[in-house]
Amino acid sequence: MRALVINCTLKPSPAPSNTEALAAVVAEALEKQGVTVGWVRAVDHDIKPGVESDMGDGDQWPAIREQILASEILIIATPTWVGHPSSVAQRVIERMDAMISETDDAGCPVAYNRVAGVVNTGNEDGAHHVISEICGALVDIGFTIPAQAWTYWHLGPGGGPNYLDDQRGHDWAASTGRAMAQNLVTAAAALAVTPLKAPPD
Amino acid sequence: MRALVINCTLKPSPAPSNTEALAAVVAEALEKQGVTVGWVRAVDHDIKPGVESDMGDGDQWPAIREQILASEILIIATPTWVGHPSSVAQRVIERMDAMISETDDAGCPVAYNRVAGVVNTGNEDGAHHVISEICGALVDIGFTIPAQAWTYWHLGPGGGPNYLDDQRGHDWAASTGRAMAQNLVTAAAALAVTPLKAPPD
Amino acid sequence: MRALVINCTLKPSPAPSNTEALAAVVAEALEKQGVTVGWVRAVDHDIKPGVESDMGDGDQWPAIREQILASEILIIATPTWVGHPSSVAQRVIERMDAMISETDDAGCPVAYNRVAGVVNTGNEDGAHHVISEICGALVDIGFTIPAQAWTYWHLGPGGGPNYLDDQRGHDWAASTGRAMAQNLVTAAAALAVTPLKAPPD
Amino acid sequence: MRALVINCTLKPSPAPSNTEALAAVVAEALEKQGVTVGWVRAVDHDIKPGVESDMGDGDQWPAIREQILASEILIIATPTWVGHPSSVAQRVIERMDAMISETDDAGCPVAYNRVAGVVNTGNEDGAHHVISEICGALVDIGFTIPAQAWTYWHLGPGGGPNYLDDQRGHDWAASTGRAMAQNLVTAAAALAVTPLKAPPD
Repeated sequence: MRALVINCTLKPSPAPSNTEALAAVVAEALEKQGVTVGWVRAVDHDIKPGVESDMGDGDQWPAIREQILASEILIIATPTWVGHPSSVAQRVIERMDAMISETDDAGCPVAYNRVAGVVNTGNEDGAHHVISEICGALVDIGFTIPAQAWTYWHLGPGGGPNYLDDQRGHDWAASTGRAMAQNLVTAAAALAVTPLKAPPD
Repeated sequence: MRALVINCTLKPSPAPSNTEALAAVVAEALEKQGVTVGWVRAVDHDIKPGVESDMGDGDQWPAIREQILASEILIIATPTWVGHPSSVAQRVIERMDAMISETDDAGCPVAYNRVAGVVNTGNEDGAHHVISEICGALVDIGFTIPAQAWTYWHLGPGGGPNYLDDQRGHDWAASTGRAMAQNLVTAAAALAVTPLKAPPD
Repeated sequence: MRALVINCTLKPSPAPSNTEALAAVVAEALEKQGVTVGWVRAVDHDIKPGVESDMGDGDQWPAIREQILASEILIIATPTWVGHPSSVAQRVIERMDAMISETDDAGCPVAYNRVAGVVNTGNEDGAHHVISEICGALVDIGFTIPAQAWTYWHLGPGGGPNYLDDQRGHDWAASTGRAMAQNLVTAAAALAVTPLKAPPD
Repeated sequence: MRALVINCTLKPSPAPSNTEALAAVVAEALEKQGVTVGWVRAVDHDIKPGVESDMGDGDQWPAIREQILASEILIIATPTWVGHPSSVAQRVIERMDAMISETDDAGCPVAYNRVAGVVNTGNEDGAHHVISEICGALVDIGFTIPAQAWTYWHLGPGGGPNYLDDQRGHDWAASTGRAMAQNLVTAAAALAVTPLKAPPD
């Protein structure tokens, strides 16, 4: 089984990413269950604006799209900015919009029988909303969201420290992340045994 | 397999409910697949404010909670008001909040291995948001949301007609609702064969 | 100048309300600027479901509506439940929906030239979203939202203590609340001097 | 008085922009009231990811930021993608995040005493949410949102035509846009006469 983590931090490599650090907890739990985990740091790639799977000259999205379709599990990891998913996360979702009308040989939308979850960090409040926004979009695109398939971290109220700078709450975020990993793996296995079929009409 | 539709219209019986009318399309598709469908019109019951499973004297939530736990599929059907899920839908979600910490004999949160979807009608824009809000909450509580497990209807822009008063777009909403029904049944079956386990720690 | 605080806690009187406690900080700041502050604890009243200004027999909304229209400043104070405004807050907003089409003698929607803000508490993340949801609805209904007209409090990540049980972050929430109060008063005064006019067509 | 429209379409020039077309209705109404309207098509500029006012080498945000600060009125015009504001709109908001802690000589956040509104188009549902998300963020940053300072257009349910391809609903969107323009101008004038002051502490 393969998983892909798309880290949607605003910071290009090699800057440290708080979001990557929390996502790594989930990735480690996936690997312990035998899942091969791939990573994409989206901001390091030239993902053109648009809603088609290939926006042409210089567009680096098609290679990322291939990695999504080669994985049974997708994790969108994003910081919170002004209470929202990052612009990089929204760009990734926009590019996945094309998948709604792309089908496989059986007539299923290409995202069917894949599962997804969310990892979120921030220096301020917004996690539940970020998670709902991304899960809502991914369900629309054709992913299944298993129970409690997310974890998050921030301290509050008001602007606070970053994940890498404060150890408080790490245990909760890690424990929640391990449950997330377990549910992603089980739900992906469940859909492999009993797959969703093409829409009836 | 059993499904429960909780209709969160603001209008007590016997007033006609647009939301019920669209949810009936989904219910019919579920029944064609052999699912037994129960209905609750939440506003007809005295659901006390609070976040515990039994708020005491006169509280009619416990009986609804039993019906949720007797079903593998939950459908929250809600109108859109001022762009949001109805106050009745939010009341229902608040009462389900207690389920986050209630576990079965195996240590699983009681909502695990149940699937859920959303039916939404309105006289104005707001469906994607209503669906994301409810799906986000249900994932938090422990439900799994299958791919594209929703349908909706409204015309726009601005305030427009009600579902029962205009036939435009009914075909799209029905077709989307039939796909929703199929995915709910398949995902519920998948989790019956390959169930989520209790969180690891 | 008059302000009305509608406390949308789920807990009927006389239970202590965390939301009331934070809103009291804002009310005190308003009073120091000469504003008369009224309070409604919405859950103590029988506010019928619906979207008209009077839902008939036993409906206690009309008296609350009168208090809104007698005030230049409205504060919606709400807890966060499952990341959302409370069902009581949504009920209040639904009942204000009727104001969109109610006009005064000059042809202005009745909420015009009134300002509004939000106070939010919770035992978990959700404040930015709660504030956006309520502000978005109130702008739709006809209120003006001054800059930074909100305050909130919760600790995170995951479920944490209530406002009344933990002193951390109170200073930030109070300072933010005093700025909110100042901006509400100034913006209300600005619209009194230079009022919005009836829509052009 | 000056206004700036930031068009957050995903399509670089010279592709036709539906969002620009609806925003032009609002701009025309502003100009009739004597306002000078500037335009930025954000996707045509290299706006670096980040949350500071100048992200360094090649960053074209600082010039846009200057235009915002030279205007009393800001209009964020955005398409809806997967029910959300566009990635370009979120990028613009992220870059404005720095303004929260930037103050003028009087100690006011730099966005104070500026007003803002939203223009939204889409080929599917999502407008109320897009408007709430953007208004919530702008209030946080320090803008004041006047009553009903938005307009939108889409047809539904499901994916439909673009604004430029269908005349239905244009009258409603234009009328709503003219009211928006009037309220933006009046509220900006109100704050010019009676300005918000620096936060009290």
